[in-house]
Amino acid sequence: MRKIEVGFSPVFFNVYDSPNDSIVVIIDVLRATTAICTAFKFGVKEIIPVATIEEALSYKQKGYLVGAERNGLKLDGFDFGNSPYHYMGSNIKDQTIVLTTTNGTQAIETAKNAYKVVIGAFTNLSALCNWLAKQDKSVLLLCSGWKNKLNLEDSLFAGAVVNEITKLSEYDEISDSALCAKYLYNMAKEDPDRFLHHSSHRRRLAKLNLKQDIKYSLTLDLTDIIPILIDNKLVKMKI
Amino acid sequence: MRKIEVGFSPVFFNVYDSPNDSIVVIIDVLRATTAICTAFKFGVKEIIPVATIEEALSYKQKGYLVGAERNGLKLDGFDFGNSPYHYMGSNIKDQTIVLTTTNGTQAIETAKNAYKVVIGAFTNLSALCNWLAKQDKSVLLLCSGWKNKLNLEDSLFAGAVVNEITKLSEYDEISDSALCAKYLYNMAKEDPDRFLHHSSHRRRLAKLNLKQDIKYSLTLDLTDIIPILIDNKLVKMKI
Repeated sequence: MRKIEVGFSPVFFNVYDSPNDSIVVIIDVLRATTAICTAFKFGVKEIIPVATIEEALSYKQKGYLVGAERNGLKLDGFDFGNSPYHYMGSNIKDQTIVLTTTNGTQAIETAKNAYKVVIGAFTNLSALCNWLAKQDKSVLLLCSGWKNKLNLEDSLFAGAVVNEITKLSEYDEISDSALCAKYLYNMAKEDPDRFLHHSSHRRRLAKLNLKQDIKYSLTLDLTDIIPILIDNKLVKMKI
Repeated sequence: MRKIEVGFSPVFFNVYDSPNDSIVVIIDVLRATTAICTAFKFGVKEIIPVATIEEALSYKQKGYLVGAERNGLKLDGFDFGNSPYHYMGSNIKDQTIVLTTTNGTQAIETAKNAYKVVIGAFTNLSALCNWLAKQDKSVLLLCSGWKNKLNLEDSLFAGAVVNEITKLSEYDEISDSALCAKYLYNMAKEDPDRFLHHSSHRRRLAKLNLKQDIKYSLTLDLTDIIPILIDNKLVKMKI
């Protein structure tokens, strides 16, 4: 049976019935999964997501390029934060990057044993949905949220995916969580930026003067690349 | 700081920051919390919520009146299920009832150490909101969901509460989860029955021929009673 479910926070992963038979889409649109898609668009070879700063530091000491963000800010001593604009330089081409973020890389860690783990962002929405709809598998849209709480922008993106893939393919079951996300998306889609105006993380980023990042992160279809987790490394999916 | 948050499933309770300083509203509109409000309307003295069938059975053997439901059905050998219509008889007046249900009583168990735990349903919506708005406390609206997953009807009720109490009082922070629930409610409020048409639990209950229960459970303000948990028993709040 092919179904669609949305986990509005990583804590939902452990109540999900069938991770071993599902494609899990990791969502952290502001900004980790957008940054990851951007890095692949600009030619990175692979990204090693790690959950803790300690692991990131250990890679840094071994000479890796390392991105590290907590609470919206790049950590001192590392090469990048989680702004997509940090991943547009020629210095990343064909490189391996290690990445740890407040929410997104934790969600990847939580889901790593699922059947397949892929990365979703508005910037690869159509490519992702076209691919998902062709797979004979259930889909779990796993929102990274903010410190295990729901956030509006990831929920909205989950709704965008539900909306698209149910147009492209027939699923046997659309869970209440997926309906909820889809309703939100259909309410917001004319003006997502306005819809997110009151969201907590948007306010958090606006304080950090990251309006440019928000605008970029809400842009559709800048790339056809779908990053996929293979042997604990994110690589460009071969389609 | 006074805030409003929605936990779309009991698993959210453990990521909530400040349960000891918050009023937790337990929500299971189809049907446990509606049944509880109905029982108080019809004069029950107290309800002892228990999480397991074993506990319920042990009370039954001691001679208590016991309600027990799993997967939408009354369990054999017990006095009631979780239909509100089971709690309208003169036999419950001034009695103590023990209750275990698939989702609702589990949520009560999860939250029992919060500052205050109260019961919410469409049937006591206005009384509940008027009281909440007067308390100088944060509010966590805890949806029972279905086996730890989000369900549409509890989310909708949470949104109704957010909608009402933000009209009645000023809160310092309205979380993304609360915004999400409120948006859903505002989309659905003209015709909640139609909105819930695709919901999984509604389909589940419709199969059990419980349309009458659904209609009753979506009726506003049948009682002014707010059940509250005191010493692990639900009693009528003295206002």
